Amino acid sequence: MTGFDEALDRIAPLDEAAMAAARDHLLELTKPPGSLGRLEELVVLLAGITGQAAPGVHPRAIIIAAADHGVAMRHAVSAYPAEVTAQMVANFAAGGAAIAVLAEQVGATLTVVDVGVASPVPRVPIRASAELRARNIRSGTRDMTEGPAMDRGEVLAAIEAGVEAAGDRIAAGARLIGIGEMGIGSTTAASAIVAVLTGRPVAAVTGRGTGVDEAGWNLKVATIERALEVNQPDARDPLGTLEAVGGLEIAALVGTIVGAAAERVPVVLDGFITGAAALVAARLQPAIAPRLIASHRSVERGHAIVLEALGLRPLLELDLRLGEATGAALAMPLLDAAVRLRDGMATFAEAGVSGPADVGVAQR
Amino acid sequence: MTGFDEALDRIAPLDEAAMAAARDHLLELTKPPGSLGRLEELVVLLAGITGQAAPGVHPRAIIIAAADHGVAMRHAVSAYPAEVTAQMVANFAAGGAAIAVLAEQVGATLTVVDVGVASPVPRVPIRASAELRARNIRSGTRDMTEGPAMDRGEVLAAIEAGVEAAGDRIAAGARLIGIGEMGIGSTTAASAIVAVLTGRPVAAVTGRGTGVDEAGWNLKVATIERALEVNQPDARDPLGTLEAVGGLEIAALVGTIVGAAAERVPVVLDGFITGAAALVAARLQPAIAPRLIASHRSVERGHAIVLEALGLRPLLELDLRLGEATGAALAMPLLDAAVRLRDGMATFAEAGVSGPADVGVAQR
Repeated sequence: MTGFDEALDRIAPLDEAAMAAARDHLLELTKPPGSLGRLEELVVLLAGITGQAAPGVHPRAIIIAAADHGVAMRHAVSAYPAEVTAQMVANFAAGGAAIAVLAEQVGATLTVVDVGVASPVPRVPIRASAELRARNIRSGTRDMTEGPAMDRGEVLAAIEAGVEAAGDRIAAGARLIGIGEMGIGSTTAASAIVAVLTGRPVAAVTGRGTGVDEAGWNLKVATIERALEVNQPDARDPLGTLEAVGGLEIAALVGTIVGAAAERVPVVLDGFITGAAALVAARLQPAIAPRLIASHRSVERGHAIVLEALGLRPLLELDLRLGEATGAALAMPLLDAAVRLRDGMATFAEAGVSGPADVGVAQR
Repeated sequence: MTGFDEALDRIAPLDEAAMAAARDHLLELTKPPGSLGRLEELVVLLAGITGQAAPGVHPRAIIIAAADHGVAMRHAVSAYPAEVTAQMVANFAAGGAAIAVLAEQVGATLTVVDVGVASPVPRVPIRASAELRARNIRSGTRDMTEGPAMDRGEVLAAIEAGVEAAGDRIAAGARLIGIGEMGIGSTTAASAIVAVLTGRPVAAVTGRGTGVDEAGWNLKVATIERALEVNQPDARDPLGTLEAVGGLEIAALVGTIVGAAAERVPVVLDGFITGAAALVAARLQPAIAPRLIASHRSVERGHAIVLEALGLRPLLELDLRLGEATGAALAMPLLDAAVRLRDGMATFAEAGVSGPADVGVAQR
């Protein structure tokens, strides 16, 4: 039995007793009941995920999986050359990328797992708070328009690399994990997965990535449609779908999600690609979706469809389309706020504040 | 000429040159152009408001105006007794209220301006980062169902207290101001103002406040409709509307907004009541609205209408309905993120990252 299978087996439903205790505590704080809206929901959700009434959200880790895509190396689905994947991996580790800046802001370590970057990663000084994990399985996936992107052994190896990354960060103390990806061509693979698993037309779940024009979008849709025709992935087989039209970094993220969920550590999703990974994970184990926190709704067309399929509502509407876990990092101060309010607010009794005279007409 | 009139006169349009410089800088950073979405817009907006290409957002101040409402003291539009206003003012200063916790999280000072609290504010130890300004003009407004809530002198005195609070914090170094309110009955006054200034029916802009039931909501709407019938406020006269159906804390917030705008300091709005104050300010001086940052969309029914009237789009969707500037504080880490990304990310040249081969088909 692999670490992945063992982790899948350990994932439990949310802890109702811990959630009830969190709800009771919130009612005592000096504010009208429910008036902190989704921050109160987060307090309850964190309790349900962790099984503790008042868990912390520090230390925290950002985990980014990186890999290249054969489909992007062979077809003009991306204007950015594949070597950008490797260059950005170096930029993450060195601290110049957006996620490096945001990880520092929110006090998160930054782990980059190379599960399939095709070009050599430039050697750069790695920041103390960053970690580069070399778990390269192959130099990018195969071209999915000609057959499966990966074989089963490659998918499972990438998943295990993700389980292992989550496990190591959690063993080092992480109580919260944000996930993201880097890979030229990643939205093409994610769109293919989402089209299969949701049964929606390719055009409905395919967006403009980093800013494709109409002709580029048409080519991207046609390329995905061809990959689906060649591979005939089956929605009832999430791993088979991942194997046929996925990516190594998406597989690694499936592993990271499953590994964290098994350890009852909350996972903050980023955008469309992490959403596709979450959808695969949730189809393997339905108890996973409630353990995920959606950070933002990206402008990528298919993201809203993924969030709906997962039953998740994002916290932020920032029109992001960068990836790299940037949205996940941006949501973390809201989790900090929820936890600080839970722990720092006075109760009505402590503060000597009157409650409503008649809750039936409670209003300020 | 009062400080208010002088401030109104000094408010200028956004600085286009500073905005252009900020846009140019963003294009050099290692990310697809525009992929950080609204964070990039914030970088440009901060430049436009301040007239500097790369302004900071620290130090920062939260300013809360507090007052009671005659209409709430005389009619059952709120289940919470009026003394809760005074009790919460003490809770702000002592550190037990939600906004006190959040102000600490985001590194803001907390100023509470009492412009009309009716009950004695309990004496409590005031936290070092908090300030309680005693500018009490009268013990709450008059009952607006029987005549004007204030006279012109009271309105102007409350506005001046707000101008002064903003000016003092800015003189002490504040580069960013978040605003909020406390006052049992405040949504009733805000709904009345918004109904007049937007021309919408009272029922369309009146919400359930801290959680009113159907009967309570009907009473609230009927009370506001009676106040409008008795006072006949004119939408072309924003100050007259404020005088007739407003609140002392709303008037103070008008002053705070105008004072900050005159000093080119960005103002982060909170929810419905600060939105009503912003609407009054924007009707007095149209160059104000672009200088405001909408933090969140509250569940209060009229808030979306106010934001639309101001031409603002909120950053957060958290279903808040607490007030106290809580939404304003919660948005501040997003401003921090925007500024940190602007200043901390590597450029393509610095990081040795390739640009798109052909921007016409740019996509990841």
